Amino acid sequence: MTKIKCTVAYDGSQFHGYQVQPQKRTVQREIQNALARMHHGSTIKIVASGRTDAGVHAYGQVFHFESPLKIPLERWPRALNSLLPGDIYVRHAEAVPETFHARYDVKQKEYRYRLLTRPEPDLFRRAYTAHVAQPLDLEAMNQAAEAIIGTHDFSCFCAANTDVKDKVRTVFHLSVSREKDDETVIRVVGSGFLYQMVRIITGTLLDVGKHQMAPERIAEIIAGGDRQAASATAPPQGLTLWKVTY
Amino acid sequence: MTKIKCTVAYDGSQFHGYQVQPQKRTVQREIQNALARMHHGSTIKIVASGRTDAGVHAYGQVFHFESPLKIPLERWPRALNSLLPGDIYVRHAEAVPETFHARYDVKQKEYRYRLLTRPEPDLFRRAYTAHVAQPLDLEAMNQAAEAIIGTHDFSCFCAANTDVKDKVRTVFHLSVSREKDDETVIRVVGSGFLYQMVRIITGTLLDVGKHQMAPERIAEIIAGGDRQAASATAPPQGLTLWKVTY
Repeated sequence: MTKIKCTVAYDGSQFHGYQVQPQKRTVQREIQNALARMHHGSTIKIVASGRTDAGVHAYGQVFHFESPLKIPLERWPRALNSLLPGDIYVRHAEAVPETFHARYDVKQKEYRYRLLTRPEPDLFRRAYTAHVAQPLDLEAMNQAAEAIIGTHDFSCFCAANTDVKDKVRTVFHLSVSREKDDETVIRVVGSGFLYQMVRIITGTLLDVGKHQMAPERIAEIIAGGDRQAASATAPPQGLTLWKVTY
Repeated sequence: MTKIKCTVAYDGSQFHGYQVQPQKRTVQREIQNALARMHHGSTIKIVASGRTDAGVHAYGQVFHFESPLKIPLERWPRALNSLLPGDIYVRHAEAVPETFHARYDVKQKEYRYRLLTRPEPDLFRRAYTAHVAQPLDLEAMNQAAEAIIGTHDFSCFCAANTDVKDKVRTVFHLSVSREKDDETVIRVVGSGFLYQMVRIITGTLLDVGKHQMAPERIAEIIAGGDRQAASATAPPQGLTLWKVTY
């Protein structure tokens, strides 16, 4: 058996998220279907770095699986891509030691959130950005971001429906920058993220950028640990799991 | 009655083209459905500058219709957009004289064809570009474009299944330029275009760019008037009806 680590991109628009669910089109199901076809119908389970929600994209999601096939490693991406639908694309495959685990061994993850920042919407970017019509105060947003960076109990930025007990995470980097005339990108790198954490942070930074919340409030919100004190969850389509580091 | 001219953008990905067809989701049907809701169920027929095929996008399609409603003109886009699906967006509305006709009065049309020019595909641009993995010789393509500019019988660039008899059209402008590191755009402006003409021109320019056809061949192909001599039709998703001028 060879243990293989794959880096995969997907467009989340037409998926009910990453993880297999009965009767639903999910990323994991499509990849496992492709692997089953390569393995004469045998089920090959894949393990990813974590889930992504419906509508959320990935540029650098990582998963592992084990296979008895003797295929040269550089041929795996093409073999899988020939069996995968157009909204999933395996970018890279490499052999990893038997001890490697795509979820447990994650050192850090980077997410990017793309905002379309102009008065008019753009239907050609509607699946990959969230539209914000009013101007954003990026300086205030970056000031708020500074308060989020570090190791904290992030209960305030975690969706209520989660089983996770330990809500301490480390945010290594969080910044907001204008990328084009009409796009602003939020980049966040952390040790790991709670359920919907990046989208709640984004929603909160947006309120700061619109002057609906003072950047000084952020430290209190984190200390308070109350989800209700933070802002609404930003929509999924602006979010991309950019990179997973081991 | 007020005659209204609207400029509309749409993402062609999820439509069976512009024109109403039984049982199919089309742009015209969606717009007429929205207008019917504004007019208490009455059918309001719209007339566009021309059709677009399935998968082809529009940034500046134009249509006209007549309405008895007394709505201030600047409110029409918002009223329509609130009733339209997310993949159609009315950009502008204005009153026009009763004699205006969105199809017959067209002076020129501009189309743009976006090519993703890099070895790897990009699933986030797959609905809006055609992927060309090999390098393109833009100089050769622009040399070929020069031979297409002008007034010619364009039978060689017209799909076989058409009823149009007069195939003389004028191409005012045709150029190929690199827009980003990995995108190349073909811009064409003409008095009007035959069925699939822009996509056949694009396919032919691509063959020139790949050195599969000499740019000097273009003049012969036009003179010969044989569709078989030109190249394959480029796929629809790279094409956008950019602007219609009256």
